[in-house]
Amino acid sequence: MGQQSGGAAIRVGVIGAGVMGADHARNLHGAVVGATVTALADQNRPVAEKVAAEIDAPRVFDDGLDLIRSDDVDAIVIASHDSTHASFALAALELGKPVLCEKPLAPTVDEARRVVQAEADTGHPLIGVGFMRRFDPSYVDLKQAVTSGDLGDILVAHCVSRTVESYPGGDSASTVTNSAIHELDIVPWLLDSPITQVSWHAGRSSRNSGTRQDPQLLLLRTESEVLVTVEVFLNARYGYDTRCEVVGEVGTAALTLPQRIVVDRERARGVAYPADWIPRYADAYRLELQEWVDALRAGRTSMLATAADGLRASVVAEAVLESMRSGGVTVDVPN
Amino acid sequence: MGQQSGGAAIRVGVIGAGVMGADHARNLHGAVVGATVTALADQNRPVAEKVAAEIDAPRVFDDGLDLIRSDDVDAIVIASHDSTHASFALAALELGKPVLCEKPLAPTVDEARRVVQAEADTGHPLIGVGFMRRFDPSYVDLKQAVTSGDLGDILVAHCVSRTVESYPGGDSASTVTNSAIHELDIVPWLLDSPITQVSWHAGRSSRNSGTRQDPQLLLLRTESEVLVTVEVFLNARYGYDTRCEVVGEVGTAALTLPQRIVVDRERARGVAYPADWIPRYADAYRLELQEWVDALRAGRTSMLATAADGLRASVVAEAVLESMRSGGVTVDVPN
Amino acid sequence: MGQQSGGAAIRVGVIGAGVMGADHARNLHGAVVGATVTALADQNRPVAEKVAAEIDAPRVFDDGLDLIRSDDVDAIVIASHDSTHASFALAALELGKPVLCEKPLAPTVDEARRVVQAEADTGHPLIGVGFMRRFDPSYVDLKQAVTSGDLGDILVAHCVSRTVESYPGGDSASTVTNSAIHELDIVPWLLDSPITQVSWHAGRSSRNSGTRQDPQLLLLRTESEVLVTVEVFLNARYGYDTRCEVVGEVGTAALTLPQRIVVDRERARGVAYPADWIPRYADAYRLELQEWVDALRAGRTSMLATAADGLRASVVAEAVLESMRSGGVTVDVPN
Amino acid sequence: MGQQSGGAAIRVGVIGAGVMGADHARNLHGAVVGATVTALADQNRPVAEKVAAEIDAPRVFDDGLDLIRSDDVDAIVIASHDSTHASFALAALELGKPVLCEKPLAPTVDEARRVVQAEADTGHPLIGVGFMRRFDPSYVDLKQAVTSGDLGDILVAHCVSRTVESYPGGDSASTVTNSAIHELDIVPWLLDSPITQVSWHAGRSSRNSGTRQDPQLLLLRTESEVLVTVEVFLNARYGYDTRCEVVGEVGTAALTLPQRIVVDRERARGVAYPADWIPRYADAYRLELQEWVDALRAGRTSMLATAADGLRASVVAEAVLESMRSGGVTVDVPN
Repeated sequence: MGQQSGGAAIRVGVIGAGVMGADHARNLHGAVVGATVTALADQNRPVAEKVAAEIDAPRVFDDGLDLIRSDDVDAIVIASHDSTHASFALAALELGKPVLCEKPLAPTVDEARRVVQAEADTGHPLIGVGFMRRFDPSYVDLKQAVTSGDLGDILVAHCVSRTVESYPGGDSASTVTNSAIHELDIVPWLLDSPITQVSWHAGRSSRNSGTRQDPQLLLLRTESEVLVTVEVFLNARYGYDTRCEVVGEVGTAALTLPQRIVVDRERARGVAYPADWIPRYADAYRLELQEWVDALRAGRTSMLATAADGLRASVVAEAVLESMRSGGVTVDVPN
Repeated sequence: MGQQSGGAAIRVGVIGAGVMGADHARNLHGAVVGATVTALADQNRPVAEKVAAEIDAPRVFDDGLDLIRSDDVDAIVIASHDSTHASFALAALELGKPVLCEKPLAPTVDEARRVVQAEADTGHPLIGVGFMRRFDPSYVDLKQAVTSGDLGDILVAHCVSRTVESYPGGDSASTVTNSAIHELDIVPWLLDSPITQVSWHAGRSSRNSGTRQDPQLLLLRTESEVLVTVEVFLNARYGYDTRCEVVGEVGTAALTLPQRIVVDRERARGVAYPADWIPRYADAYRLELQEWVDALRAGRTSMLATAADGLRASVVAEAVLESMRSGGVTVDVPN
Repeated sequence: MGQQSGGAAIRVGVIGAGVMGADHARNLHGAVVGATVTALADQNRPVAEKVAAEIDAPRVFDDGLDLIRSDDVDAIVIASHDSTHASFALAALELGKPVLCEKPLAPTVDEARRVVQAEADTGHPLIGVGFMRRFDPSYVDLKQAVTSGDLGDILVAHCVSRTVESYPGGDSASTVTNSAIHELDIVPWLLDSPITQVSWHAGRSSRNSGTRQDPQLLLLRTESEVLVTVEVFLNARYGYDTRCEVVGEVGTAALTLPQRIVVDRERARGVAYPADWIPRYADAYRLELQEWVDALRAGRTSMLATAADGLRASVVAEAVLESMRSGGVTVDVPN
Repeated sequence: MGQQSGGAAIRVGVIGAGVMGADHARNLHGAVVGATVTALADQNRPVAEKVAAEIDAPRVFDDGLDLIRSDDVDAIVIASHDSTHASFALAALELGKPVLCEKPLAPTVDEARRVVQAEADTGHPLIGVGFMRRFDPSYVDLKQAVTSGDLGDILVAHCVSRTVESYPGGDSASTVTNSAIHELDIVPWLLDSPITQVSWHAGRSSRNSGTRQDPQLLLLRTESEVLVTVEVFLNARYGYDTRCEVVGEVGTAALTLPQRIVVDRERARGVAYPADWIPRYADAYRLELQEWVDALRAGRTSMLATAADGLRASVVAEAVLESMRSGGVTVDVPN
């Protein structure tokens, strides 16, 4: 839990005022203790100005680099286009300013590696990566079930990640690097063991998905020899749905569909699915930001995914893409 | 959502450093934007000092009246013993300081009425009553289902309020005034109609409940002629469990047991019950406090239960007690 | 379990070829071991002929009395209009032929009493009453949970009986004598204690229910001092729904909505409700008939509700009607 | 539904009086219309005699071949050791007697092929294979959801088959040929398309499973290009659990855990798992036998799995074993 009176608020600058950036800015302003949004940046300046007005943020920039250099900014949230993540992160590291970078840390492994190296050169863990599922109360409970020992050693796990519809412009590869990437981070976190082997599988594809293979099936193996199936289906239509079951020697545990009320109507008993990730992970985003700010104020390392975690997820994603390009062969993930 | 940068933080004093008071203080410190806890008071000073140290609250008082009068305190949370609520509220009203008073507003109808009158005399809605269920996301969704019209007009409702064990020292009457009181507030809020008639019913009582009648059954009728059953069972042992179903002309909606994970072990598929109200209503308490602070900072009336709501709940509770004393006769609730 | 090869099949005559009678006849023919339907009777002869042709029943009568007297009939199922139950039952008793009489045993307490007396005069338990819920696997499991002691002593129970729409021609009284009668039988069976006190309550009535009060609320008390709430709502529209929860000193048990599959579509996860009692209680009807036939073949007393049980349910229903006519006063059920 | 009066009862002989054989015999005797068990055979004669006495079966044999040849036997249920299935089936075919053969039709593909050929030579569909899941009401509903079109075209499916503990004496291969074989039959039935490609995968194995790889993961592909994951875990300990989800272009459907009551105790809300397949598939076995008998009496082809279906399942199992032996390579299933 945060520290409100114990020191000045962290002055945060948010780069990117799209859906994710605006959501972070609003959370920092209205739901996270100990931070104040002092600046917003967006290539499309009016978008940034609109959000800034809404939350009384005093400064607006066109260029994220100007925001990073601003004396009014202590810490930076990077929520701009994926292709810009690495260069903004490197600029912040140069000034020794802490960063919360939306996933992915970088679109390519090489760039991610460069960021990890640059952070190492500073000697400080300045970068947190926005794998927010680590702060989702359901995943936290699931991890607690795993570590409690109540299930025995974990042997197998099954993940499902379905969304209502894919964003325009993506392809089969971006399903892995943008969507499945969440599983590539959360599975090792949950099982406390890195992914060492992957394969990619495809069958019939939805007619709603154009040329993108959808759904896709990944088969992962952790260093601890746990087999993990991952179904990613972006145009599942029926709802936004994250599932995960871990199967141990004496029991299993699984995420439930978050549900507050149940409704009986028209011959059915039903529970509503969220339409997208915003309602599903609202608590996770808030708690992630609060932990980030609390750690900054306390001068301690946060519990966010590290730059190394972000790099590792990208390395695993690259191995999945190699399997995809090679007709589904099993690929060892390089160290 | 709160306003962090838009003006100074509200300086809150918390009276009572027991379970509820400490919880409010910690929330205000670490999870609510725009407030700072500047003072704590408790008859048992070391208890207040301990919480104050934990959250860096600078001042500690033995006497809540001193806290209320302190220049460092803009607004007051009353979480002390029920018997003190009214006098502290009246003292705060005298100074024109806003109050969040834990339920009940007062242990007797007369005292509650005096507080309502005193607030009216100030000409300002200075008092909010801590009926936190109004901020519970599940109840909010349930009310949304009611007002959406999807269920048709509501005809009947069923409430169940069960806890693991009763507090020592209570009796059959306190089951109504301390526990069922939540239903006496939430039912009219949910159905948008006051309770006008009540009766109290008792059958076999648990051997775990001493001389207290437990469970108890209330039958309520709203002005809109909705019949409502309420079972209150304090020593239900199995878990902390709040249920509510509203039944309309074409459908029903009901609270679910909040569940994040499901576990398969030892021949059963199970979902855990919370042990008490703290985990069950953690979000509700946080959101209630945030709304209270946001409203204070914005100079608007908050969405908390009003002093009149608090009085009304006490009036209905008094009618239930009259039925209890009269062997279960139906009692009209006075206006 | 039945005995197929151990003796001749019971030759059953079914009086009434409406929905219930035809269902019984088809079950006896195709799903119950050890019985053969040798005759059907219906005032509306073509209806009986149609069913007889379907199941190869050799004889058809216009008059149930002729069927009862037929030498081809060993045992009789009475599924004709309620008003005829008692006279057919008496006629069968006169000939010493066993009877499975659909509920109610008789539309009035006086008639039911006459049947009970006539059966007593034969010295043999010749009559079973069709309270099929006693054979519903869910209720059987619920009773097992009650008697296991795992819940501790039962203190309170809650029943809900909702149907999609009421039959034409009924009124507020027939809701009790035709529908709630199932609860008036199953509650004492479940709790192993007779109902000794009742009251009837009404609030807002559905606009879909004409002049019939719908829903209705009953408050029952057993000899063992268990309080039971019963909501009966015939025009609930959303589905056919029987609920029952028993609450004990250390735990509760409840019927679930029977569900074989769950479907995710259009932003909802849903389970289908049955449209009426036929699918909901298909197993119960089959198992009830099998038990009746098995007991007849084995020459033992069956586990069906007895004539005395049928009478008792009618006596309790009469007490509920008295409460209804008297504005909801509490009525003691005569012994 | 059966035909009781329409013709003589089928005189059935049951070979094998172990768990499965005794269960079939009891069902035929007490719960299936139109059949009578006239003979039982078991190498261990006293076992057969015990069951025979219980159900009044007049004849007992040591040798199944004698039972097959008996003039008192019209039709044969083969529930003896897997290794005997083919020879008994061939003997029955020689005499033109219909057979319900427990799965597998034969332990090897060659033997199964011989049975299929022998049946073809008779010109009559004399053999039904005991893949009882086809008669499980939940699977029937699931297939109905698939064929209804409500889910759109099916793209992916996920199956899980877990049991409490494995039988002694098995190995990794028998997990496939004895347990996963159910999925190898039901998946093509459900999706109406044969399995054309398989691969076998293994990770960490339970310490409760000795040298048997457990759990195992199969990846199947149907001719219609649906990808199917199958987890088989025999020593799952927590309960007997069959899961299946089909995922279509606009929705999904899945088996539920069959549940009649839910129990609240000791801080948990729980539903019980069956301990083994007997309670889980009790209805399926009864309905399968009833359909077999009904079809025999009506002189029509039954809806049971055919000998060709049984052969196909064995061919697919053999392909899975080839993948197992080859380190998980993808194997095409021969036609």
